[in-house]
Amino acid sequence: MEAIVLLSGGVDSTTCLAEAVARFGPDQVLALTIFYGQKHAKEIEAAKQVCAFYGVEQQIQDVSAVFALSDCPLLEGSTQAIDHESYGEQLEKMGGCGTVSTYVPFRNGLFLSYAAAIALVRGAHVILYGAHADDACGDAYPDCTIEFVQSMGKAIWEGSGKQLSLEAPFVQLPKAGVVARGLALKAPYELTWSCYEGGDRPCGTCGTCRDRAAAFAANGVADPALNR
Amino acid sequence: MEAIVLLSGGVDSTTCLAEAVARFGPDQVLALTIFYGQKHAKEIEAAKQVCAFYGVEQQIQDVSAVFALSDCPLLEGSTQAIDHESYGEQLEKMGGCGTVSTYVPFRNGLFLSYAAAIALVRGAHVILYGAHADDACGDAYPDCTIEFVQSMGKAIWEGSGKQLSLEAPFVQLPKAGVVARGLALKAPYELTWSCYEGGDRPCGTCGTCRDRAAAFAANGVADPALNR
Repeated sequence: MEAIVLLSGGVDSTTCLAEAVARFGPDQVLALTIFYGQKHAKEIEAAKQVCAFYGVEQQIQDVSAVFALSDCPLLEGSTQAIDHESYGEQLEKMGGCGTVSTYVPFRNGLFLSYAAAIALVRGAHVILYGAHADDACGDAYPDCTIEFVQSMGKAIWEGSGKQLSLEAPFVQLPKAGVVARGLALKAPYELTWSCYEGGDRPCGTCGTCRDRAAAFAANGVADPALNR
Repeated sequence: MEAIVLLSGGVDSTTCLAEAVARFGPDQVLALTIFYGQKHAKEIEAAKQVCAFYGVEQQIQDVSAVFALSDCPLLEGSTQAIDHESYGEQLEKMGGCGTVSTYVPFRNGLFLSYAAAIALVRGAHVILYGAHADDACGDAYPDCTIEFVQSMGKAIWEGSGKQLSLEAPFVQLPKAGVVARGLALKAPYELTWSCYEGGDRPCGTCGTCRDRAAAFAANGVADPALNR
């Protein structure tokens, strides 16, 4: 096994998996999908379908016990509603900088640590992580910033005895750039799920629905998942 | 809640908890104990007793699913035996530098990520971690080195939106120095458990038994856990 990819089942991580498969071949890639109590657990079904599409092995881990006491609106049992504004609009209200309400405490750090442990157990040498610049912008999701990726990468390198690297190929790209890359790689976007509400159909108005739609629009294509 | 402490139930983390209680008071400290499939799961019982001694709240998390495929000798189900040499002897055989067989893949990085997520959920501002210089020496445990602690600390700081710090108060001390500090703080060492074998009594010859004994001997005191 060469590489492990964090796969949520959304656009960014599916593109990241497409990258990994293109580089290493499907037999050398392990996808790691994590249930953390998210309302939109149906993204896990999407992740399964994406793995089946590529013929990639998938591991699913459950870390929901960690967030049992969190009231983040993304989580089942939260008393708070999900924001129906784009991240840009949410940031504007915070004066241009601040963490959005759907940030889950150190979630991506925890996921990357899981990936590191499993990668070492399986003999993989690299973790691929689909963080991109739009999610990092204004510290909306601080666990997507370049500063986080660099320091987490160094922690993984040092803490693994210099056996394992972290790469975030899209960390300087906007989401539209990620989609451009995925379209070139023919990523199966029709199988992906993003909406935080986790209903039968994407709500179209939560932060991630809005940003997904804008990224496809910027590439001049219809979102293939809307035509399923 | 001010601080969260990783508490295994051994000497180093018990000393770290003693530090935290001295600094913040028992009501402001949360101890995090993790089951990861270790053969010596009785250290968790020791950790419970240490928490009861201090009147500190404890959370126990189970991450054993991550290491289900690992053959590290520290883990239940491993086909490998635990080394009965000191870390110094093991390092000498590797030419002075190398990772010991009881290193569990990125274990401490994973534990610190758990601590970070839970700290943020509970509003704590600092994680205390009892890594010390003897465990880091020669990269025996790469997830105890200063380089790891610094980069993981930065990852936690950045990934939390600059809300949470990592401190490793013993990272430059040898284990004997940790014990000196704990003796001064009257840490309840009689309640702790270190031995990797997890038998009825400490085996006295595994790496951690040897290093524990040497640390008490260097302070000119008997190990109080041996007289229980």
